[in-house]
Amino acid sequence: MQALIFDLDGTLIDTVYAHVFAWQRAFTEIGLPIDGWRIHRRVGMSGGLFARLVVREIGRELSEQEAAALKKRHGELFQEFLPTRQPLPGAVELLRFLRDAGVAHGIATSGQRPDINASLAALQIPDDTIVIQRGDVARAKPEPDLFLACQARLQAPITECYVVGDAVWDILAARRAGMFSIGLLSGGYGEDELSKAGAFRIYRDTAELYRSLNELGLLS
Amino acid sequence: MQALIFDLDGTLIDTVYAHVFAWQRAFTEIGLPIDGWRIHRRVGMSGGLFARLVVREIGRELSEQEAAALKKRHGELFQEFLPTRQPLPGAVELLRFLRDAGVAHGIATSGQRPDINASLAALQIPDDTIVIQRGDVARAKPEPDLFLACQARLQAPITECYVVGDAVWDILAARRAGMFSIGLLSGGYGEDELSKAGAFRIYRDTAELYRSLNELGLLS
Repeated sequence: MQALIFDLDGTLIDTVYAHVFAWQRAFTEIGLPIDGWRIHRRVGMSGGLFARLVVREIGRELSEQEAAALKKRHGELFQEFLPTRQPLPGAVELLRFLRDAGVAHGIATSGQRPDINASLAALQIPDDTIVIQRGDVARAKPEPDLFLACQARLQAPITECYVVGDAVWDILAARRAGMFSIGLLSGGYGEDELSKAGAFRIYRDTAELYRSLNELGLLS
Repeated sequence: MQALIFDLDGTLIDTVYAHVFAWQRAFTEIGLPIDGWRIHRRVGMSGGLFARLVVREIGRELSEQEAAALKKRHGELFQEFLPTRQPLPGAVELLRFLRDAGVAHGIATSGQRPDINASLAALQIPDDTIVIQRGDVARAKPEPDLFLACQARLQAPITECYVVGDAVWDILAARRAGMFSIGLLSGGYGEDELSKAGAFRIYRDTAELYRSLNELGLLS
């Protein structure tokens, strides 16, 4: 195996609970209370899919204007709730190790610049790190586009890439891309949810992944 | 089976994500960032146990003063984040049905008055509903005390009581009390986490439990 492709939120940065709660508050403010756990299990998937699933929960379509206002309000609340971004344990050290060891790696996220800039800065990665964001591809997770774009930039064969993610959407997208995947519990999914979705291995967080790199047959 | 004993937060009221995020912010404010998912998997357990587990995460003891300040700050943030309490789907209707059908039931929570008053009000239950709160027993979940106190008030035999909860702490405490338990996904645990802990059945939320009451062999 030659390369690692990382999801960002919940995998490298501890933002999941702030995202869930910001969405929940934004929905509640427009009179649409949605259960926290249903939001939790849907963050990380494409915004369009997320919106359609929300429609199913509340029983009606959101107008384009409502959807845009909701997204804007989520962004404001997220910023208010989480003024600083906290890397998950081991994330900074693991990425530094991969750079120093010359192991190919990149980040592929459903998030977008400028929203993700603070997260990338907190990870202390150089500017030339390969980062594929939502705007770089036509379709977000669970479509495979983000991971395939990252793999193309890494110039590693598809079957030589591990995807590392915390959500079933990462695991599904990885399978659809033809890649192995590694699930992390740091996004709050249960272990069996990730392994049943198809994760090859499950670790608690990037710190445990870092200690377990020798189980992955990575070449540098 | 004769009686149902309900947990409150995450089971009847949608407060889990607000609690998790309020704890996370309170810890961050005193310079102790703790991963959201680790907090999530620990809410609902006894405050003393929670504090000791936190100590293990951060590597040092909290002073009594620090712990009290943290608890106070969590309460303030929780109130700020979640000014109104939202019942989970089906909770109000299920409780009304149980009253009307004369099925014995009560609430047993690690929460305390006056914090829980707004949640109880949102559930639209009469004042004489049996509610056992943290202050009524010596030890909180995963000790069985809360459920046993509720069962004593309900005057139903232990083996005739179902505990309904969203956290593994509910399921463990139920087993230690000698009771069957029913897990709900509305607190954000994975299905397998609850069934491996020992839940007899798993439903998505109180709405699905309400539709499935005939699977439980309840007598009224």
